Amino acid sequence: MEADLIAHLRRRLPPHPRLRLGLGDDAAVLDLAGADDVVFTVDLLSDHVDFELAEADPRRVGRKALAVNLSDLAAMAARPLAGVVALLLPRRGGLDLAMALYEGILPLADEFDLAIAGGDTNSWDGPLAVSVTLLGQVTERGPLKRSGARPGDRIVVTGSFGGSILGRHFDFRPRVGEALLLHERCELHAGIDVSDGLSIDLAHLVEESGCGAVLDTGLVPIHDDARRLARERADGRSPLEHALSDGEDFELILAVPPDETARMIAEQPLDVPLTEIGKFIPEPGLWQIDAAGARRALEPRGWQHELSE
Amino acid sequence: MEADLIAHLRRRLPPHPRLRLGLGDDAAVLDLAGADDVVFTVDLLSDHVDFELAEADPRRVGRKALAVNLSDLAAMAARPLAGVVALLLPRRGGLDLAMALYEGILPLADEFDLAIAGGDTNSWDGPLAVSVTLLGQVTERGPLKRSGARPGDRIVVTGSFGGSILGRHFDFRPRVGEALLLHERCELHAGIDVSDGLSIDLAHLVEESGCGAVLDTGLVPIHDDARRLARERADGRSPLEHALSDGEDFELILAVPPDETARMIAEQPLDVPLTEIGKFIPEPGLWQIDAAGARRALEPRGWQHELSE
Repeated sequence: MEADLIAHLRRRLPPHPRLRLGLGDDAAVLDLAGADDVVFTVDLLSDHVDFELAEADPRRVGRKALAVNLSDLAAMAARPLAGVVALLLPRRGGLDLAMALYEGILPLADEFDLAIAGGDTNSWDGPLAVSVTLLGQVTERGPLKRSGARPGDRIVVTGSFGGSILGRHFDFRPRVGEALLLHERCELHAGIDVSDGLSIDLAHLVEESGCGAVLDTGLVPIHDDARRLARERADGRSPLEHALSDGEDFELILAVPPDETARMIAEQPLDVPLTEIGKFIPEPGLWQIDAAGARRALEPRGWQHELSE
Repeated sequence: MEADLIAHLRRRLPPHPRLRLGLGDDAAVLDLAGADDVVFTVDLLSDHVDFELAEADPRRVGRKALAVNLSDLAAMAARPLAGVVALLLPRRGGLDLAMALYEGILPLADEFDLAIAGGDTNSWDGPLAVSVTLLGQVTERGPLKRSGARPGDRIVVTGSFGGSILGRHFDFRPRVGEALLLHERCELHAGIDVSDGLSIDLAHLVEESGCGAVLDTGLVPIHDDARRLARERADGRSPLEHALSDGEDFELILAVPPDETARMIAEQPLDVPLTEIGKFIPEPGLWQIDAAGARRALEPRGWQHELSE
C-alpha cells in the first residue's frame, strides 16, 4: 500500500528548514525566500537502460537517480535546494523496492543538504522507472551555462574518463561542491557535465556556444577503469576511445580563459585533479590533435538518445 | 533523435517572462523573485494504468498528465508557475508520440500561464510513462492544506461526481481558478482534490485533520456520466456508488465554517456549482446519513495505490 510507504517515509525523512509542509498533502510547500533565480531539472532513469535491476542493489539505483540530477545542478553551478521523486514500480515486491530506493536517495540528499519534499508512487506491470526533479539556487555569479565558451578559452576537465560501466556510473560523486567553488573563485565561461560522453558533451557545449574545439587527445585523463575495460573487453577500442565516448563519468567540462586556466591548473584547488585538454576555436565542430601535432576531425561519440519517427 | 525533439520544442515553446533559460542546457533557470513559498508536486502517469494509449489520442494523454498536476496545485490553492516533463517513450514511433503529447501539454500550460521549462526524454522497450513536476506560488493566505478541517465545518464540493472513465478523466478542467477565487474571498479551513474517489479522498482529508465526517448521501451531486455508467455497466453499482468511488473527478472537497458555507452556497461565486454535502465531526472516521436520517459507517472506496511487499 502506498499509505505504508508514506507512513514509513514520514518517520524516515528528516525535517528540513526549507520544508514548510512535507509528505501527506496534495503537494509539498517550500520556503524559497532569498532564492530568486532557481534551477529546475528532471531526469528519469529506467530499468534495462540506466541500470539492470536484476544485477544491482536497489539502493545504488536510488542513489544514481538522485546523483545524475545533482550532477545537472553542478553543471549549472547551482546549490541544491529540494527534490521530488516519482516511482513507477513493478507490482511484485514494490514496497520493499521503494524503501530500498529511498535508502539510496536519502543519505545522498542529506550529504548535499537537499530537502526531499515528496513524491508520487505508482505500481504497474512494467519494469522500474525513477524520475527525480530538483530545484537548485543560482549563486550571485549567475548560472553556468553551456553557451558562454569563447574562442581562445581552454577546455578544462575535472577527474578522469572512461569505463564508468564497471561501477562508477552508480557510485560517482556529483561535482556540486567543486562547481560552486570554481564558479566563485575563478572566471568560468561555460560548463557541462559529462553524462553522454566526453566528446559528445563537448560537442553539445560548442554547439550552444557557437564555436568549435580542438582536443589534445594526449592530455585526456584516462581512468584506470577505461584501461581495464579495454583490456577485458578486447573489442578493439583503446582506453582513449573509452575515455572519449563511454559517458556517465559525471565530471565537468569547463570553458576557462587562458590566464585563469594557468592559475587553476597550478593551484589545483579541488580534491579532484583539474586538467587542461584543449581549447575552443572560432570554426565550428570538434577536432583532435595528437602528440605529433596532426589535426583531424573528431567524431563525437557516446550515448545517443534515439527516438524513431 | 532527442535532438530533433529539442529543436522542435525550441521553436514550439513560447517564451515566458519567468523563464530565464529554457531548453538546451543542463537545466532550466526560473525567475521566482517574489515567490517565497512555493508548492512543489510531481505526478507520474503510465500506460494501462492512467490511460490506454492504444485507444486514446496522445494529445489527450499529454493534457491529462499536466491537468492532474494542475489539480494538485488547485488543491493547495496555489498559482501555477512552471513545470518540467519527463517522458519514457516506447522506441517505435517515439518522436511522433512525444510531439503529440506536447500538443496536449502546451495549450493547457498556456491557458494556466504555466512556463514549461524543459524536461527529459528517454526511449525504452516498455510502455509510455509521463512524469510532470510543477511549481506553484502560495498566495498571501498561505497554502490550503488537508489538515485544517475542524468539527462543525461543512463539507463543500465543486461540481459533480462519478463516471469520469467515460471521458472526463481526460478532459476535466483543473479547478485552479476556482480554488484561488474561493481561497481569496472565503474562509477555507482545508481542501483536497478528488483523484482517487470522493469517499476515499474525504477519508484522506479527515485523517490529516484528525477528525471525522458525516456525508449526507442524498446531497452528493451525481454526474450524468455516473448515471450512464450505472445503466450501461449493469454491475449492480448505483449512480451514487459511482459518485462516491469512481475517482478522477478532479473536483475540490473543502472544509468551510457553517456561516461561510451558507454565504458561499447562496452566492455561488463560481461557474461550477458549489454544494454542501455533510459536515465534519470530532469522532474519527467516515459516516453517512441517508434521506431518512439513519447514520452508518461509510467504507471509503476508490482507487487504491497497491504496493505489495
